[in-house]
Amino acid sequence: MSNINKVVLAYSGGLDTSVIVKWLQETYQCEVVTFTADIGQGEEVEPARAKAEALGVKEIYIEDLREEFVRDYVYPMFRANTIYEGEYLLGTSIARPLIAKRLVEIAAATGADAISHGATGKGNDQVRFELGAYALAPGIQVIAPWRDWDLNSREKLMEYCADNNIEVDMKRGKKSPYSMDANLLHISYEGGILEDPASESEEDMWRWSVSPEAAPDTARYIEIGFANGDAATLDGEALSPATMLETLNRIGGENGIGRTDIVENRYVGMKARGCYETPGGTILLKAHRAIESITLDREAGHLKDELMPRYASLIYNGYWWSPERKALQALIDQTQDVVNGTVRLKLYKGNIMVVGRASEGSLFDATIASFEDDGGAYDQADAAGFIKLNALRLRIAAKLGRKLD
Amino acid sequence: MSNINKVVLAYSGGLDTSVIVKWLQETYQCEVVTFTADIGQGEEVEPARAKAEALGVKEIYIEDLREEFVRDYVYPMFRANTIYEGEYLLGTSIARPLIAKRLVEIAAATGADAISHGATGKGNDQVRFELGAYALAPGIQVIAPWRDWDLNSREKLMEYCADNNIEVDMKRGKKSPYSMDANLLHISYEGGILEDPASESEEDMWRWSVSPEAAPDTARYIEIGFANGDAATLDGEALSPATMLETLNRIGGENGIGRTDIVENRYVGMKARGCYETPGGTILLKAHRAIESITLDREAGHLKDELMPRYASLIYNGYWWSPERKALQALIDQTQDVVNGTVRLKLYKGNIMVVGRASEGSLFDATIASFEDDGGAYDQADAAGFIKLNALRLRIAAKLGRKLD
Amino acid sequence: MSNINKVVLAYSGGLDTSVIVKWLQETYQCEVVTFTADIGQGEEVEPARAKAEALGVKEIYIEDLREEFVRDYVYPMFRANTIYEGEYLLGTSIARPLIAKRLVEIAAATGADAISHGATGKGNDQVRFELGAYALAPGIQVIAPWRDWDLNSREKLMEYCADNNIEVDMKRGKKSPYSMDANLLHISYEGGILEDPASESEEDMWRWSVSPEAAPDTARYIEIGFANGDAATLDGEALSPATMLETLNRIGGENGIGRTDIVENRYVGMKARGCYETPGGTILLKAHRAIESITLDREAGHLKDELMPRYASLIYNGYWWSPERKALQALIDQTQDVVNGTVRLKLYKGNIMVVGRASEGSLFDATIASFEDDGGAYDQADAAGFIKLNALRLRIAAKLGRKLD
Amino acid sequence: MSNINKVVLAYSGGLDTSVIVKWLQETYQCEVVTFTADIGQGEEVEPARAKAEALGVKEIYIEDLREEFVRDYVYPMFRANTIYEGEYLLGTSIARPLIAKRLVEIAAATGADAISHGATGKGNDQVRFELGAYALAPGIQVIAPWRDWDLNSREKLMEYCADNNIEVDMKRGKKSPYSMDANLLHISYEGGILEDPASESEEDMWRWSVSPEAAPDTARYIEIGFANGDAATLDGEALSPATMLETLNRIGGENGIGRTDIVENRYVGMKARGCYETPGGTILLKAHRAIESITLDREAGHLKDELMPRYASLIYNGYWWSPERKALQALIDQTQDVVNGTVRLKLYKGNIMVVGRASEGSLFDATIASFEDDGGAYDQADAAGFIKLNALRLRIAAKLGRKLD
Repeated sequence: MSNINKVVLAYSGGLDTSVIVKWLQETYQCEVVTFTADIGQGEEVEPARAKAEALGVKEIYIEDLREEFVRDYVYPMFRANTIYEGEYLLGTSIARPLIAKRLVEIAAATGADAISHGATGKGNDQVRFELGAYALAPGIQVIAPWRDWDLNSREKLMEYCADNNIEVDMKRGKKSPYSMDANLLHISYEGGILEDPASESEEDMWRWSVSPEAAPDTARYIEIGFANGDAATLDGEALSPATMLETLNRIGGENGIGRTDIVENRYVGMKARGCYETPGGTILLKAHRAIESITLDREAGHLKDELMPRYASLIYNGYWWSPERKALQALIDQTQDVVNGTVRLKLYKGNIMVVGRASEGSLFDATIASFEDDGGAYDQADAAGFIKLNALRLRIAAKLGRKLD
Repeated sequence: MSNINKVVLAYSGGLDTSVIVKWLQETYQCEVVTFTADIGQGEEVEPARAKAEALGVKEIYIEDLREEFVRDYVYPMFRANTIYEGEYLLGTSIARPLIAKRLVEIAAATGADAISHGATGKGNDQVRFELGAYALAPGIQVIAPWRDWDLNSREKLMEYCADNNIEVDMKRGKKSPYSMDANLLHISYEGGILEDPASESEEDMWRWSVSPEAAPDTARYIEIGFANGDAATLDGEALSPATMLETLNRIGGENGIGRTDIVENRYVGMKARGCYETPGGTILLKAHRAIESITLDREAGHLKDELMPRYASLIYNGYWWSPERKALQALIDQTQDVVNGTVRLKLYKGNIMVVGRASEGSLFDATIASFEDDGGAYDQADAAGFIKLNALRLRIAAKLGRKLD
Repeated sequence: MSNINKVVLAYSGGLDTSVIVKWLQETYQCEVVTFTADIGQGEEVEPARAKAEALGVKEIYIEDLREEFVRDYVYPMFRANTIYEGEYLLGTSIARPLIAKRLVEIAAATGADAISHGATGKGNDQVRFELGAYALAPGIQVIAPWRDWDLNSREKLMEYCADNNIEVDMKRGKKSPYSMDANLLHISYEGGILEDPASESEEDMWRWSVSPEAAPDTARYIEIGFANGDAATLDGEALSPATMLETLNRIGGENGIGRTDIVENRYVGMKARGCYETPGGTILLKAHRAIESITLDREAGHLKDELMPRYASLIYNGYWWSPERKALQALIDQTQDVVNGTVRLKLYKGNIMVVGRASEGSLFDATIASFEDDGGAYDQADAAGFIKLNALRLRIAAKLGRKLD
Repeated sequence: MSNINKVVLAYSGGLDTSVIVKWLQETYQCEVVTFTADIGQGEEVEPARAKAEALGVKEIYIEDLREEFVRDYVYPMFRANTIYEGEYLLGTSIARPLIAKRLVEIAAATGADAISHGATGKGNDQVRFELGAYALAPGIQVIAPWRDWDLNSREKLMEYCADNNIEVDMKRGKKSPYSMDANLLHISYEGGILEDPASESEEDMWRWSVSPEAAPDTARYIEIGFANGDAATLDGEALSPATMLETLNRIGGENGIGRTDIVENRYVGMKARGCYETPGGTILLKAHRAIESITLDREAGHLKDELMPRYASLIYNGYWWSPERKALQALIDQTQDVVNGTVRLKLYKGNIMVVGRASEGSLFDATIASFEDDGGAYDQADAAGFIKLNALRLRIAAKLGRKLD
């Protein structure tokens, strides 16, 4: 085992990471630095200070990263209309690179030689934290207690707490049967009855949204304004990235929007069931596609669509901090300076309907598209030549007797 | 102008194609063969016979192609989870290859030297009809009256009817302000107020579905069974492809499912606004993704996802009958023999929620995925090596001082 | 026919474009502006002035664009290791965007309403000129005489010259049986006996290179230095882009390097036989791949490799001036800031052998790659976990009885 | 350590794998089954029998797999024009799936519970062997001695031999300074002075080919006939796959063809220098591209080109036995039934020049491609419409003032 003097821990203030603080101190006889970030998980972060102090931690970092999170991670990702496996908006995945970055920055600032996290050895998060850390700080050491220790059941954890005077927070103790993760983009649920993909989720599992059934009987209309591909205004009012997402989460949640229930493929090789609430993100995805539909060139859009699944996999698999993600981002961002304008949406009981899009830079040309007389803007005779030349290779092959049916 | 003796026309029985019959007869002094197909557009096709006869047509083909349409075109397309530009289920596009194929087959059977259709020179359908025809019958001639004649307004058409004793069908004459196209997969709307992408569609435009607001207040649950990637049973009952789609259209439409309102990029170079109702297809897409989620290998699925946009463009652009579509289809079909099982769906006011999936060939392994003790099925220590080697190239670069942030 | 007052013609000074000057003047009763560029075709451009004057042209543009051509077109293209259909280095394709750009710029400067070129209606060049012109100057008109006039044989052209007192340049009149095109990147040959793909080219066709047989019996070593992905030095000496390519053309040609004989797929739908000499480009391609091999990240490189064929097609098809090419270029360029260092090459009778690569930013880590003891730089035990997790999905499927062989 | 009763070892008969036999017997107290295959490495395999017997092995498998290797692995791979990272023909990679398959088949036949191989923990081969084994036999155990034991230097190995009475084969003992691997497709060299990518390889390293300098002064012409994408005849004579490759290796090697010297990216994360001789494969690649150039549809070919790098990576990384490789293979194979005909090649001092291609199913249409009058086969006027519609989206954007330069 390497010699560790100081380790920076991604610390939630909850039971598991509190146990980790103690376990690190004991196992490595090292100092632990805690890092707790508000990325919109909806819980106070300040209480983590007292808990860390109680565990003997001297260097405690508590930070509000909500704006940075949305501006530098969520928004760039949404420029690509990113969805993993057709369904998942990557709410957990996209938060990890920021945490990894701050962990190694704090390690550098405090002279720590290692970082640690509370992710298990079966999931994607360990990969995301660690790939990010290694990519940004190649000499860093990583301690992943869940892969190393023998506290591999709730009972053993509780016993360890008792033995080590770790206060078990009973509020959290009323513990959900689900493993949850939340940030400004989403809240996720895994485990419990979800481990059977044939079973329907329970209504009281969901925390951020009402069910479509429970949503208001009248629709809500909103208008989102985009600047360079990013949501910038809501109903005409400029909102910061974090405020935009918070507001859309609230509005979306009230209208039963953004629930997903999927089986996804983890990078570590297994399939896993997950339920997600992503109200604001779901709205943003729909709106972004709509504003692109009138402002983005066809081929640029198709190129983005073809590259998107790979880009999504990179983020899902933990390669935000990689040369290939940066290269793809350069392509994506290069297309977005023309993506400006407004989209009107109708939200109703789980549905998001695009009911209008407008842009000063709209490529939609009513004259040319019109069924009415276009005054010569488009010469229909051109279509014959267009078709003939596109058909030429097919005709030459068919003349040779090649069969396509 | 080429010497045309006989031409096979895709004939709907409506006003426009009736005018075309007459115009072809007069312009080319040729015989016209009419071909009218039931592909589920929801109108009787038999009345086309009398209309054609009244126009002096001697060879009249009227065919029910509904099963062939769904089995050989819609179902193969759905194996790829095909969507054009993130939104459009290709309802019109996928019907054209079948029509093109029958047109040239009938031309061969009747000794015709040309085919004709009623698509305009601004749209995609001319391309789809003609590329298909040229690919299957390289020597065929194509007459596209809308690109050639001068009847380019409703008034001139009406005048032509009056001059030529063509009966104007007043039922259809109560004409919708929209240009519509329907088949078993969808009904589409273009034109009219839709030519302004900022304007919301009118509720009374939609014909196949109730609005989410008007849908029942209680959810409907259905279960779709898949065999080799194709929907085969509904609530346990085996249904033929066409019956499956018809039934899902009805159920979906009753529950406000399947409306889309988009601006799309046409192959001929312009953007166009379209509204679509695809109730059954929307359900099938969701269900197919769900059954794949437990039965399809991760990398096979990702490969399909990356190729899908290109496959969708091929269909949209009229290249169903092409070597590259066939090659892609071979890849897609090769992956589907394992896609078997059932998916439970909850339909409610426009929402489709996956509430269960099951398969005897499920790759979801609860033991391995579990947060609980897995009895050694998965060695968490493996993850450390997995991450380390995946990180190696990133660390080597970082040690050289390369920056990623 | 549109009303044309002034037209800018891409004028070589040769017979064909001289005829076009006259034909434009007569057909449109318009002024013709000639534009003649030195892009390294190896012929004097200044003589074009007197010829244009003799034809009554008043506005004559003669420009040396060699540096711009290599710097802004050839070099960016080579950053992607671009090859069309596995063989063609795009020598003709990459010159067209620059010509198109200058044509419309000169049209703007001279108040011309049209441009014209001497490319035929069967080739790719018409597409490249015109797509470029339309993309940069959407209101421009394009006149392509070869598609319009009836001078479609050598005899008719000669007759037209005689009728119109156009001097037939007898030096050029000793005319090659081939249609040729040259610029700093390559010289191409089409037509003549090449129209039979089964026939071998004749040795005396080739103009820029000796045959491998005729090349020196001793090898020549050179060293190319790269800066940000572009060739910057030769044997330690800094060379401008055009000088670099000129020098490598000479050295390569002397050593029998860079001949290609292929059948390629034209954008207009037919296959065509072409022979190409690209001595310098062939060397640069090999050298660029070699410097990337030690400096570029694996995944960034693979991403480039996967996108390259599409990028090559865009250039081949005439879409240099397009949003999608720009987006891809952004991705490509983003990867190149680390591509620095030197490559040693051995040139011998048509062969280019990489015999050394070095870079201060080399990612090749001898310690880690070594078969010898690496002192712990790489933990071989990590490989077991790496393999195990990568195999997990395959094992789960195999346990279900799925067959792969 | 798992309980191992019997293990099947990939046994070359050389020193390293002989040590492994003994080490396995001692470490696991298990029976060892040896498997030695002739895949064209150019060494007798029969002597392995006596060596294995001397080590106390009772079940000895010695097989000639040359035809199976070329027919079922090399040829399918060549249908895709497969090259890894622009240079490497995958000679080692493609042999591993066959070995892996036979190892687990022999394990099943002999009731063994494990397989073993002599690949190191730093290379790709361990991954290829093990991924293949796990994919085909998910319950198999894998023993990779080089990752486990402490015999990690030549000295320790020799000491182990002395201690265990393992005869050190002095012929092999005159040991090359290089780590080599050979089969019918290639021979590879790593290690030694090659570990410095700046150093040129030594001439006496190469074993299969003469240098271009030493090759004959007169060219050799050959003609390869293809059937369904596979090389079937040489100069008119039908040859089995293995005989074809053997013959082309000899001819190519005599003419200095097929040497490559590269730095490649290993799957385990590091860059590595390798030199390869692939005479026959290099010829086949060139010839296959040439026959495709006249028989394969443009878009089918481009699709293959775009997918090839991924397919190459799959093979390089060890995923031959995977659903995604099978899916890609289905696509590739689907395109090859039209790839028939002959290619003439000129081989001269390292150069392969295509000097003729012919096919009854050639898509090259001299009439259409001709610069001469084509009698109306192609209407040049069609090109205007083709260009206009392809330009439409670009013009609409340009009219809005969007800049591309």
